[in-house]
Amino acid sequence: MGGDLAPAEIVQGGVDFAHESGRRVLFVGRPEEVEPALAGADAPRSLVEIVPASEVIGFHDTIRAIRRKRDSSLHVGIRLVRDGTAAGFVSAGHTGAVMALGKVLLGVIEGVDRPALPAPLPRRGAGYTILLDAGANVDCRAEHLLQFAVMGSDYARHLFDVDRPRVALLSIGEEESKGNDLLYETTALLRRTKLHFIGNCEGNSLFCDVADVVVCDGFVGNVALKVAEGLAEAIYGMIKDQVTTGSLLNLLGGLAMRPAFRNLKRKMDYAETGGVPLLGLKGVIVVAHGRSNAKAIKSALRVAAHAEERDLIGEIGREIGGLRAADGPHR
Amino acid sequence: MGGDLAPAEIVQGGVDFAHESGRRVLFVGRPEEVEPALAGADAPRSLVEIVPASEVIGFHDTIRAIRRKRDSSLHVGIRLVRDGTAAGFVSAGHTGAVMALGKVLLGVIEGVDRPALPAPLPRRGAGYTILLDAGANVDCRAEHLLQFAVMGSDYARHLFDVDRPRVALLSIGEEESKGNDLLYETTALLRRTKLHFIGNCEGNSLFCDVADVVVCDGFVGNVALKVAEGLAEAIYGMIKDQVTTGSLLNLLGGLAMRPAFRNLKRKMDYAETGGVPLLGLKGVIVVAHGRSNAKAIKSALRVAAHAEERDLIGEIGREIGGLRAADGPHR
Repeated sequence: MGGDLAPAEIVQGGVDFAHESGRRVLFVGRPEEVEPALAGADAPRSLVEIVPASEVIGFHDTIRAIRRKRDSSLHVGIRLVRDGTAAGFVSAGHTGAVMALGKVLLGVIEGVDRPALPAPLPRRGAGYTILLDAGANVDCRAEHLLQFAVMGSDYARHLFDVDRPRVALLSIGEEESKGNDLLYETTALLRRTKLHFIGNCEGNSLFCDVADVVVCDGFVGNVALKVAEGLAEAIYGMIKDQVTTGSLLNLLGGLAMRPAFRNLKRKMDYAETGGVPLLGLKGVIVVAHGRSNAKAIKSALRVAAHAEERDLIGEIGREIGGLRAADGPHR
Repeated sequence: MGGDLAPAEIVQGGVDFAHESGRRVLFVGRPEEVEPALAGADAPRSLVEIVPASEVIGFHDTIRAIRRKRDSSLHVGIRLVRDGTAAGFVSAGHTGAVMALGKVLLGVIEGVDRPALPAPLPRRGAGYTILLDAGANVDCRAEHLLQFAVMGSDYARHLFDVDRPRVALLSIGEEESKGNDLLYETTALLRRTKLHFIGNCEGNSLFCDVADVVVCDGFVGNVALKVAEGLAEAIYGMIKDQVTTGSLLNLLGGLAMRPAFRNLKRKMDYAETGGVPLLGLKGVIVVAHGRSNAKAIKSALRVAAHAEERDLIGEIGREIGGLRAADGPHR
């Protein structure tokens, strides 16, 4: 029920994933809306099922309303994970609501103070830089950033196959002396771990092959992410303006370049990565972009399946536990 | 003496500005280096002059070394402004050093707690969004952000001819409830002023025609600016990769699109805006990008001349004074 293109594109993405993977997909929502979408989607009947949920959580619901709508698709879907019926849950709905309910219904991994939202950013070459927290936690202390670093490393290792992820702190200069008190403190904590900590990095390093995991608080992370989204859109817009309002030569050039732009756009496109797992919850929840189409939802379901197969949750639990053990009994 | 391309490009930019404006340009630095550059630059002899300074401040100088090098080009240049010999000073050197010496040698306008570094960001349509503070002040309180808002408005009015600049706070959601304690407090202060305050804006609004002045602390502002720089570079790189490694069609398309890209690049280019005035100092100091070429230096000199002609410093003094008067005698 969540996302701008629900339910048609969401259902289509789920059906496509069922076809591709042979895994069962449960569609949680109002049967009277999901049923027709499913009928039009050429679904493999043995692999799809509707799980009824009568309520819907919207963007304007307060945190109280979110908690109270127990028969909403978010509540019902997350309970499927909690009860072991589903290996993971994907939503294109309100990220804040998904996170809030994930905490309440699944609980948080022992040793994690605050679950985090990661954002994989494409680089010029190959691969992604994982930025976290991308907006779940506005005010953070050093131990929160430390935990983000551990969870981000697990995410990079198990979902992006990075062998020994380089971890950096997002700052305003590479030197350790640049930054603020929070960063000095976090640096000291990171130096005591087995993480491959490489120091500070600046905002422009996010799109280069400098670090695999870049850690910051959710305010800074969200601003960074939105700036990147906004600028990418503005640049595409400017290119389009140039092509359509420029000379005939520009127009022809634009047409000839179309395949190149399409390639480039794909690289920057959220539909490719599809969705990100909420890190630190006791179960797999993947949030997809609100504008997700069928392709993005299929990718998000792949991420969820992948997270389960690689036991991402278990790995995070062990690594965070190791952190506490290494820190001794005084905590 | 400052900047990657000093002294040749710096001198050339100054000479070009002297030709264009008919104003006198003083070149501060080691005569043995500036002299030959000036000889090669076809300078209008009556309009140029070398002011000797034997020392140079580099990027690795400590704050103590910066203060001690009294015969450096930065010290000598800023003293020319203090003594009324020069209407303004332009440097492509170490921004932190320029700011530090500006505070010591010129002093700060009464009522300004912390001078700020603004950054004009190009939009898809016309005009610029002025982001500040772009990195001079890492930790800020609400009254600092309030002062940034006043100074940013003056800058937009007098140097970008924006009639009634819209002021927004950079946050992680448009609703007032999103954000952190600093933003709530600043919102309350801004509501009591005559500024055209429009509320919060997100990172993606920076490149749209949403606000004219966007205020944040220097940590967030610097990250935002560097993210934008890094992504713009990465996108240009990706387009280049596509053109050079793609098909013949891509290559031809790329060649045909060259004028469009050039236009676009110009729009994004720091050489167009050239430099930014440090806001809150008792005198005109303009910092230019470290990579400034002659064109960028000429633009930066134009900004300095413009700031003097429009009495930017006086305007800031009056507006900040008005803020204190409106706030009553209890302060």
